[in-house]
Order: sequence, then C-alpha cells, then structure tokens
Amino acid sequence: MKNFLDKIESPNDLKKLDKKNLTHLCKEIRQNIIEIVSKNGGHLASNLGVVELTVAMHYVFDSPKDKIVLDVGHQCYAHKMLTGRRDSIKNIRKSGGISGFPKCDESIHDAFGTGHSSTSISAALGILEAKKLHGRSGHVIALIGDGALSGGLSYEAINNVGRIKENFIVILNDNKMSISESVGSMAYYLSQIRVRYPYIKTKIIVKQILKKIPFVGENAKNFLLNAKTNLRKFIYHKNFFEDMGFTYYGHVDGHDLNGLIRVLCVAKQVNGPVLIHVNTQKGRGYFFAENDPDLFHGMPKFDARTGQEISTGESFSSVFGEEICKFAKKDSRICVITAAMKSGTGLEKFSNKFPERFFDVGIAESHAVTFAAGLAIEGMLPVFAVYSSFLQRSYDQIIHDAAIQNLKIVIAIDRAGVVGEDGKTHQGVFDSSFLSTIPNVTIFAPSFFEELKNMLKISLYNCEGVVAIRYPKKSQWYKPKDFLGSCGCEPFDVWGDLNCKIFVIVYGRLFSLACLAREKLSKKGVEICIIKLNTIKPAPKSLIKILGEKEDLLVFFFEEGMLRGGVGEHIGLLLLQENSGIKFHLKGVGDEFVEQASVNESLKKLEIDEDGMIASILSCL
Amino acid sequence: MKNFLDKIESPNDLKKLDKKNLTHLCKEIRQNIIEIVSKNGGHLASNLGVVELTVAMHYVFDSPKDKIVLDVGHQCYAHKMLTGRRDSIKNIRKSGGISGFPKCDESIHDAFGTGHSSTSISAALGILEAKKLHGRSGHVIALIGDGALSGGLSYEAINNVGRIKENFIVILNDNKMSISESVGSMAYYLSQIRVRYPYIKTKIIVKQILKKIPFVGENAKNFLLNAKTNLRKFIYHKNFFEDMGFTYYGHVDGHDLNGLIRVLCVAKQVNGPVLIHVNTQKGRGYFFAENDPDLFHGMPKFDARTGQEISTGESFSSVFGEEICKFAKKDSRICVITAAMKSGTGLEKFSNKFPERFFDVGIAESHAVTFAAGLAIEGMLPVFAVYSSFLQRSYDQIIHDAAIQNLKIVIAIDRAGVVGEDGKTHQGVFDSSFLSTIPNVTIFAPSFFEELKNMLKISLYNCEGVVAIRYPKKSQWYKPKDFLGSCGCEPFDVWGDLNCKIFVIVYGRLFSLACLAREKLSKKGVEICIIKLNTIKPAPKSLIKILGEKEDLLVFFFEEGMLRGGVGEHIGLLLLQENSGIKFHLKGVGDEFVEQASVNESLKKLEIDEDGMIASILSCL
Repeated sequence: MKNFLDKIESPNDLKKLDKKNLTHLCKEIRQNIIEIVSKNGGHLASNLGVVELTVAMHYVFDSPKDKIVLDVGHQCYAHKMLTGRRDSIKNIRKSGGISGFPKCDESIHDAFGTGHSSTSISAALGILEAKKLHGRSGHVIALIGDGALSGGLSYEAINNVGRIKENFIVILNDNKMSISESVGSMAYYLSQIRVRYPYIKTKIIVKQILKKIPFVGENAKNFLLNAKTNLRKFIYHKNFFEDMGFTYYGHVDGHDLNGLIRVLCVAKQVNGPVLIHVNTQKGRGYFFAENDPDLFHGMPKFDARTGQEISTGESFSSVFGEEICKFAKKDSRICVITAAMKSGTGLEKFSNKFPERFFDVGIAESHAVTFAAGLAIEGMLPVFAVYSSFLQRSYDQIIHDAAIQNLKIVIAIDRAGVVGEDGKTHQGVFDSSFLSTIPNVTIFAPSFFEELKNMLKISLYNCEGVVAIRYPKKSQWYKPKDFLGSCGCEPFDVWGDLNCKIFVIVYGRLFSLACLAREKLSKKGVEICIIKLNTIKPAPKSLIKILGEKEDLLVFFFEEGMLRGGVGEHIGLLLLQENSGIKFHLKGVGDEFVEQASVNESLKKLEIDEDGMIASILSCL
Repeated sequence: MKNFLDKIESPNDLKKLDKKNLTHLCKEIRQNIIEIVSKNGGHLASNLGVVELTVAMHYVFDSPKDKIVLDVGHQCYAHKMLTGRRDSIKNIRKSGGISGFPKCDESIHDAFGTGHSSTSISAALGILEAKKLHGRSGHVIALIGDGALSGGLSYEAINNVGRIKENFIVILNDNKMSISESVGSMAYYLSQIRVRYPYIKTKIIVKQILKKIPFVGENAKNFLLNAKTNLRKFIYHKNFFEDMGFTYYGHVDGHDLNGLIRVLCVAKQVNGPVLIHVNTQKGRGYFFAENDPDLFHGMPKFDARTGQEISTGESFSSVFGEEICKFAKKDSRICVITAAMKSGTGLEKFSNKFPERFFDVGIAESHAVTFAAGLAIEGMLPVFAVYSSFLQRSYDQIIHDAAIQNLKIVIAIDRAGVVGEDGKTHQGVFDSSFLSTIPNVTIFAPSFFEELKNMLKISLYNCEGVVAIRYPKKSQWYKPKDFLGSCGCEPFDVWGDLNCKIFVIVYGRLFSLACLAREKLSKKGVEICIIKLNTIKPAPKSLIKILGEKEDLLVFFFEEGMLRGGVGEHIGLLLLQENSGIKFHLKGVGDEFVEQASVNESLKKLEIDEDGMIASILSCL
C-alpha cells in the first residue's frame, strides 16, 4: 500500500498533492524501485539517485506539453511511475512488459526514446527547433548525467546551443559516476565547479533571475547583484557552460525537493539556454547501493534484504578479463581500453594490476578506437573491450583510423548477439554485419571459454589488422562431452558426419543449440552435420570447397544477428555460386529490431533456438 | 627555380637554412601550392594558411622522432614538400602519385594517416601513451583546426588529456573556418578568447614559462608573474582549455614566423598538455582565396592567373539544392541540416532562402542525425545532406535515434560511390552496405537528375522511416535517348528484352556504363537486358520473381560499392535460392580499400566500367 503513489495516474495528480507530502511520495517511489529491480533486475543506483529530481520536474513542468528528454534512460523508473505506468512497471524489462528505457510508443510522456548515452541534448535541440518553427508553446528539458557528458555527441550538441534564444533547460545530474566512476578532464572540472560554487541559495537564485526580468530597474538590479561578492563571482567568472552560451545555475542539492522546485521555476523563466547543475547521490536511500553504486548500477535479480545477487558465475567477460591479464603479464605492449565499462567487460583485475596500461576513456567509443590506433601505430598492442551495441559508435573510426592503415587492434566485443531485457537499443546483432563490410578486419566467434582464450592468443599474435572477437553475455552453453574441435584454432569445426545430406552452419553460442537439436533429430532418425564457424570473416574458403563438391545438399544457416549483410548471406551466396545443387535456408534477425524479452524467448521467436532449428529442418525433408 | 625549397630534402635541411631566409622559403612554398592545385585540383585555402606554421614546426621539432599529427590533412602540402616529397608533389592526388592527405606508408614523417576530421588529438594521445610505455623520447604534436574542434571526437580526446604529465602539444589552427565558416558556441567562444587575450608577446611567454621551470626561485617567479595585470588575468582567469588541463598559449599570429618559432620552443619545455592558439588566414597569400576561402577550400583544376575553375556545370548536388528549395517553399515542415558542408552539398540557396530552417551543425555528423530525430519526433521533415564517407560517423545514431523509433528522416547522400582523387579515406563505397543492415531504412539510387527529383519527392511524401537517396559526385552520365523508364517511381526499370538470357543488374551511374556496354555487345551480336535498380533497399521482390521463373539465365551484378553486405550479395542469394538455374556473377569492391585515382581509372581497375562489364559477360559465354 503506497498512500501517495497509488493516487498518481498522471503528472496532473502529482500537482494536486500537498507540497509537504512530496517527500513521502519520494520514499514510496524509492521503495518501489528497490522492490522492482530486486525482482526483475534493471538499473538500480541511477534510478534511486533521481527520485526527488523527477518529482520536482513533473511538479514544475507540464508533460507532455513540456518535453522532458532523458539521457541514456537509466533513470526513467520514477518518471514511468509518475506517468501512468505505476502498475505496469512490475513487468518492466519483461517480454510484452514496459521497457527499462524511455520509449515513445509506450507513453506520450516519453519525449524521446533512448538507451545509448549522450543523445539527450541533441534530441532536445531538435524538439525545441521544431516547436519554434511550429509556433508551439512548451518547455524543452534535457536531463543528462555527468557520465554522459564524456561522450562527444553531447558536446556536439552543446556546441549548437548558441543559436537558441528560447527557454531551453539542460539539467546536469552530477553523481560523479558514469557506470563506473566518471573519468576525464570534464569530470575533474565539474568537481572544481562544485568547490567553486557553493550550494545555491534560493535567495541568490531570485536575485540572479532579476537580471533576466525586464521590469526591475537597472539600479535595483545592480544593488542586488552587487550585494554579495559571491554573487558577483558567480556572474562574472564564467565557467565552461556559460562560455558555451548557457545561463548556469549551480550547484543544487538533488535531494532537496523544495530547492529543486524553486530552481526549476526560476530556470523556466530564462529566455535562452540554462544549465542547472544538480548534485545527486547514486543509489540514494538504499544502503548497499549507496556504498557501491558501480556494482548496483545495472543489476540482475537480487535479494533486496541483503543486497546479494541471486546468481553469479564465470562469464565470457570474466574469462576475457582473466586471460588478458595473463597475456599482459608476459607482453608489456598490451594495453586495454574501456569506454566507461570496466566492470561490465571484466576489467577490474586488469585495471588494478596494470593501471598504467589501462585506459578508461569515458563514454567515448569513437575516441577509444582512434586512440587505440595511435597506440598501435607506435608499436603497442591495444585491446578495446566494448559492448557490441556501443561499438556501433566506432564504425567510422574502425574504417578510417584503424583498418585503412591496417593497424593491429583487437576488439573484444562483449554482449554480442541477443541481450535480452534491455531490448532493441542494446541488441548486439549488428556487429557481424557492419564489421564484415570493412577490409583488413578479421572476426572470430567463440562458442566456449576455451575458444575465447585461444582466439585471443591468435588475435594478439597471429593476425594482422583489426581483429574482433565477439562473444555473448554471461556464460557458455551446452557442449557435447565428446566434442573436441580445434578449440578455435581452425576456421571451422565439424560436428557430425561429413557424408550427411543435411548441414547446419552456425557460430557462437548457437552451436550449443544446434548440438541439442542434432541429438533430438538423431533420435527421430534424422542425421545432421554441424559446421561451427570459428572465423566468421573471412569466410572459410575450404568450407565452400568441401560443401561445393557434394550433391543434393540441404544447408541451414542459423545466425544470431542481422541477416542483411550477415555471415549467412555471404556464405550462402558463395555456396550457391559454387554448387547449384544446394538448397540453402537462412534464419536469423530479418529486417526488424529485436524486442525486449529474455534471451531464450528472443531466440525462440526468431526460430533459431533448438526447437526452431528442428522445425526448420523437418519442414524441408 | 625555387632557391631555398630546392635545397630541402628533409626537415634537417630546413634547420640548416639561415633563419632570415625562412620567409623566402615560405613564399616559394606558397607559389608551389598554387601551381600544383591549379593543375591537379586539391585543397588550396587551408594549405596556404599554414605555410609559416608548418615551417616553424619542422624548424623546432625533429620529425620523425617527434610526431606531428595533422588533423583532416587539408593542410599537409607544405609538410609534404618539406619532408622529401617536393618533387613527387606534382603527381599529388593522381593514380600512383602521392596522397592529398597524410599517409603513413608514404613517409616516416606522416605520423598518422587521415582524411576525416577531428581525429588528431585522439591519435596523438595514443602515440604519446605508447611512447611513454616504451620509454621512447620525442614530442607529440597535434595540429587541429577550429572547424575540427566542432567534432565530438576532438572533445572526447580533450576530455582525456587530464592524465597527461608529459609534454603534449596541441596547436589550434584558428582560421575561423571549417570548410564553410565555423559555426557553434565553440567558434564564438574562440572569437571571445581572441578578444580577451591580446597577441602574445614573446616576453610574456618567457615569463609564463618561468612558472613551469623548477630552477627559478619562487620569489623571482612571483615577481615576474605579478608584474603585469594582463599577465595575472592570463593566468588566473582560466579558459576552457585551461579548465580541461592544458597550459594555454594564445593567441599567436600564425604568419609571424619568428613568433611561432619562439612559442613552439617555449611550449616544448612544458611538462603536461599545452594548447597553442594560432590565428591564421585561410587562403593567405593568394588574392582570390583570401577573399573567398570557402570556394577555394577544395578545388578542381583552375586557372591560377584568374582564379577561375576550368569546368563547372550542373551536378547532383546542385540539382538536389534546387529541388529541396522547391519543396521547402510549399512545405514549411522541411528543415535541412548540413555538417559544415553547405556548398559541397549544394545548399547555398536553401541557406539563403530559408535561414530559419537551415542548420549547419558543424563537423558533427552524429549530432546531425540525433538532432534530426528530435526535429522529426516533433513533426518536422528533416533532410540531412552529407557525403557518404562522413555518414559513417552516424551509423549508431541512424540505428538508435532514428530507425528504432521509425522516425521520418531523409538522408541525401552526396559523393556516393567512388570519389576519385581524395582516395581511400573519402570513398563513398560503404553506405549501401551499412545502411542496408538497418531496419526501417529505405534506400534509393538515382542514375539521373530527373530521378533524383522524383525520389526526393517520394522520400518526403511516400515513405516511412529513414529514407536515404545516394547519388554520386558531379554530373549525370550517359542516358540512351530512347530510355524512358519510370523516372525513379518504380523499384526498378528494365532496359532491353526480358526474354534475353543475359541480365545485367546495376544501380546509380553504373547504369550509364551498362547501357554503353549493351550497345557495344549488341554490335557483336550479344543481346543483354539491363535491370536498373531504383530502390536498393528493400530488394524488389517482383524482380526476384520475374528472374526466378526463367531458365538458364546468366545474371551479372555490377556494384559501385563494397560487395560484402552490398546489394548484389543480397539479391544474388535471393535469386539463387529462388532459381538454381541462374549463373550469378558479382563484381564490385572486394575486401579492400579503393586507392586514389580518377573515377574512371578506379572503375576500370574494379572491372565495373564499360569494358570490364563487356569482358565479364564475354568470358562467360
């Protein structure tokens, strides 16, 4: 029973609450967030940090007339609860349930869909310009974290606020964290600002605003403005945001509801861009998360009472993290780069053991690759560990800075394939396609930990140019106990009898599902031979040759990725050009985005799980 | 006869010159630049602006021990002349000749290859960290223009200079221009800095450096430092670069050779990152270019005496520019976005007629797309005009901000296909592949101006989601006078007899070459039917059906783009799955980058020109 939250169906209901009850409401929201994340997994610490800020925003602004654009979306839970999704939030991140991120087709209050970092100011600027051209009223607000401010996209947008003459509010949610601790000069600079500017007093804000309001006489303004040295300093000593054209209000205690409401009321009266610098505490109100906000940023299910994750274990990330340490111990040229994903990509240990060779560049995937290219050209061996979906931001840099110069860079692609509950924005289904378009790139796809280890070694010491190793989230799957294979050393492995008439080609963890399918089919008297690709670019020529010589073949290619431009399309064409007697069937992600669901549910829907494979094969016999 | 330049085979020879002769050398270099660009085409104004700066850099630093990283590379001609390529520069930008951009395999003095903007600080940071880890000595210098500073990548790098404790020099070549005039808050801010900081006096620099040198007593330093108010202001009133961790020296006259040499000598003694703010004049020393640096940025051949381009005429860019004005006149929702490429993409007229709906966002392709998504979500009709090769920087934003939300954005892709003399870094050969991987994206490829007009209309009013129209540089090519076609309204057109046994599938300007091939083949008694694709994504199903029903077909697909993930690969597989009686042959850009050469030379080498097509076909008969 949540006395206040239960009454809120829309932001209008929030405005009806007595102001003194808002603090209670915040408590209830917090409690709800902890309950939900402990059950469904999700983003905990970031959501706990912005409860007061979200309440204040919806109290002061009129969504959907006013557009509130959230950056990344790791902080949207309170927003969702206040905008008609209080009850549906219990199915957040589940198949058919609401998204863990803002999503426009879910609510008119989600002004812009997101998931990746640093997009909010860009999108909000577009919304503002459109409103202006339409002659529509309403405020536009972008809420961005200090972590997201390390992404170049946010800076490109800030560089474009200069032309704005209308009210445009950027709220900087400064919790001193990306997912890990924020890094870089801007983070340090923000800490300097925090020292330089004391907590803003409402009185001072009021005086500040006098400057902007035309009906107060110049003398009165000057009197007020000169009253305090502090205020003078405030106004005349410009900081970066002021230099970029913002009126700066900061910093503000992000857990002082009344203060927040007041500063937002003031900010909405400014004609021009305003930046409100709000200090929040990530994980606020939940003891365990306050103490380790990094660990509690994005969570699988956990025990709300003890703060313990319900399941853990070895993962591709942790195996990669261990292994790269072993190589780095022997080879001083190895450097590791992360874009603010130290723990997610398994690099805690490396960062502790080899701090001088560990580079957390911030949420800056483009820079990560060009920086790696610089390391490589001077003889180092850079390894960039990154989630598949975020690597999309490095496409041009991989082409232009790395591959054209044929520089040796290893890209360890984590979360490749279907990722599950994070949904469309985070699916790692594009990398096989977009990396395959690039010359001087080799791509490996391990199915098992031991293969990842070998492929890492091959990548470091037996390949030229850019080498990518793509592996899925979490752990390895089923491996038939008598399957040996080449452990990643050959371009492909064969599991079954090459004299079969039915071939299944797969790579990555789908091999496990294909093996299960093979066993079941065998029991039905259908024998298949599995080709497990280890190298997915270049396509293994010998495979084309082997299959090219056989007669009346049925070949199935199952791919956990986009079909368009994918490995299956490429190999399929090569096979059919070589051997017109082959019937080739291709299944994977068609021309559509993959919705949120568990990994198993997604694979089932794509018909590339064990049952899907069996059904495809049986339907062709 | 160039008395001084002729003596210089390497930077060492430059150092042997009497300092007073350096000005003469600069004159000779300028003269050479004008001569060469007038003959070969190339980047004129940007190169003329940095002559003194380049001479000063090579005078003060020891390349290749010291690494000089040039951003973009539009300013490398003087550098090339001073580093052993004085004579070979006459073949710059020609097939087999030296590149118009820095290229590592061309010279040990080219520290990092480039072509796209904003990479220099990232790459230089990588080089510096590598040097440090290797224990190698030598300075690292990044030369970046104010235009390139609008790209987020440069900011991501600047955000990473904080950890640098070693000498690291960024030279900001501030000519107030991108290719067009620089835009954005940072450009304005730089102009403010220029006002705030007077031209630096050598004496002041010397005092400044005292602060950094350990052996001068504190008192002496303080005495010197307090001597002038100006100096105090200089030190205590931090600007953005200082906030980001740089020691700032600025601003410096970029055409005062002695001043430049002195400030570089001082800068190389600083332990930590230094930013030298140099003012240069784009086009310096050539009357016509000084007066119109935008026009003279990148040039085709021109008459050096009059400054007139030798050839001009209607181009796809100009047709697009005219047409979008017509639509915008009738439809107030149409907005046009450019990433610092106003003239290149034909938008001069639009920018004049509809300034409130024209957005030059700076060299910020990622922001351009997310900003467009913001415009679209609020009901505008944004059109982003961009070169194919630069659109690579928007890959994630097209997926994440536009396509996932199925927002209506039109991307007008200029310079699609082979671009000629700019070489590897600028080839527009990836867009068909990388855009095809994205759901909710439609791609059109006009062969002729009239088709571009129709496709633009269809894109604006008869398509959902992201729509790309890709067209080549310069003009349309040959069109058989009796070819009518659908003028882009149908997914494909047929040119020839559908009862033929030989089909050639093409899109874009290759249609013209296929027509020429068809005419020649016909004279040899070989009849072919050409399928001209207008829509390249999605693949036209009816085409698959039509060809799928025929027997004993020979199908050739010629593609001016990457084969991997390209249109041919996709359609080829569909055709062969449908009809095993087809012999399918695919020619285009294999797994390699396309070297600089004229467009015709490149197409010939790729065997997709008229003769290549004929040879392919005849060899299969």
